Amino acid sequence: MRTEGLSINLATVREQWNLREAVEACARHGIRAVDPWRDQVAAIGLEESAKIIRDHGMQVTGYCRGGMFTAADAGARAAAIDDNRRAIDEAAALGADCLVLVVGGLPKESRDIIDARRMVADGLAAILPHARACNMPLAIEPLHPMYAADRACVNTLGHSLDLCDALGEGVGVALDAYHVWWDPDLEAQIARAGKAKQIFAYHICDWLVPTRDLLLDRGMMGDGVIDLRRLHALIVAAGFTGPQEVEIFSAENWWKRPGDEVLRTCIERYNTVC
Amino acid sequence: MRTEGLSINLATVREQWNLREAVEACARHGIRAVDPWRDQVAAIGLEESAKIIRDHGMQVTGYCRGGMFTAADAGARAAAIDDNRRAIDEAAALGADCLVLVVGGLPKESRDIIDARRMVADGLAAILPHARACNMPLAIEPLHPMYAADRACVNTLGHSLDLCDALGEGVGVALDAYHVWWDPDLEAQIARAGKAKQIFAYHICDWLVPTRDLLLDRGMMGDGVIDLRRLHALIVAAGFTGPQEVEIFSAENWWKRPGDEVLRTCIERYNTVC
Repeated sequence: MRTEGLSINLATVREQWNLREAVEACARHGIRAVDPWRDQVAAIGLEESAKIIRDHGMQVTGYCRGGMFTAADAGARAAAIDDNRRAIDEAAALGADCLVLVVGGLPKESRDIIDARRMVADGLAAILPHARACNMPLAIEPLHPMYAADRACVNTLGHSLDLCDALGEGVGVALDAYHVWWDPDLEAQIARAGKAKQIFAYHICDWLVPTRDLLLDRGMMGDGVIDLRRLHALIVAAGFTGPQEVEIFSAENWWKRPGDEVLRTCIERYNTVC
Repeated sequence: MRTEGLSINLATVREQWNLREAVEACARHGIRAVDPWRDQVAAIGLEESAKIIRDHGMQVTGYCRGGMFTAADAGARAAAIDDNRRAIDEAAALGADCLVLVVGGLPKESRDIIDARRMVADGLAAILPHARACNMPLAIEPLHPMYAADRACVNTLGHSLDLCDALGEGVGVALDAYHVWWDPDLEAQIARAGKAKQIFAYHICDWLVPTRDLLLDRGMMGDGVIDLRRLHALIVAAGFTGPQEVEIFSAENWWKRPGDEVLRTCIERYNTVC
């Protein structure tokens, strides 16, 4: 079965394997691209992680994740910016295609989403010079509106692209089917993103009915209601030619199965949606 | 404490009281407006419900609910339209300000949200003549995008207003803070709705962090992160002068408390956000 054009976000097998084991397993299954998380890299060490990835000839379709720019006090916001600069350095050391950014929700005790969005714009502007110097594209990931309070106050592709346009060169989006599939403006905004060459990554999984947990109940492609074939066709029509990256947080199902079974299923289902 | 301008959606106390008990309790607490659900009315009978509401001089800020226009087969869609016509009749008998519509999600086995939206537009068009004949305003309620699959494929105020504009006179929106608070386009769309006199109802509750259940974990005003004062100011600036209607689905908290405590708390918290 085809594995070309498939990437595995390593959160998908985070409960089964460390980075080394996950990369080796992907290679064993013929998968040529991964997206590791910072804690997975930290657990092995940056140099060692970069070596493992290089030795297996893996494309790194993204590095998860920077962002979290919103905080009640200026000191914490400055610390977040420093941390993002380190994330950019790590992403560069890993040879990642982009640094994925989850921008942050409302600061503690805050009800001011407009102010939170200002902090996001300020944070992005603050790290952009370093990202450009490192030649590391920044990919804003609009999260589903159900995460507006606690994870990301940027919740639509359109809003993300407005930020990209304001910031200029070097900022784009990581488009995740799970977060955007419901958006009535999606087709127009994907076309807009394509025209501006602002699609840096494309993540897939599925929306389950019912969804039992806001964070950890994502579905395998085909088990839910997202029209992934149509979405992929829109992405391709917009000029994005990169891999489809499977990212599944699934505490009660996929995280409990053997990693090899998860990867086999990812490959099978990937072949039904591309 | 002020109770003027406060309405209680009777789902808020659905586990504690039937319609008669709930209306009597509201009256006892000085609350002059309610929004009953169809099953609550059916349990008592339509005439009796209308009499109870009339006898207590209650404004009926809405009737919950019509909609659910999406279905895989034409027969089921036709049945939904018939059922909506009956809901319009009931709303008229109750003297409701509007019939609230939750439009329906994806039909069973479907991944085609665009087709589902077409069914919604068709369904609305089919019931509108009867609604107009009964002088019953139809209020589309855009639901939070996390309900796109299973409850309503219309998830933003902007999308709802596009439908209203296409349908014309007699169709507006029921704006619920819980569903729309995250929307970056909210301020502009509220202003647009105000200009066109399309705001028919305004519902309040709060978004809890964390939210433990997608449907039944809504918060009491003040316990979450929604800036309800700002939102209400926008609604008022847009020309809506109707009551703020409290609608809280809370299986593990408010539905388990004595109804009188719930109403007392609604009044207290209402006074902090208006």
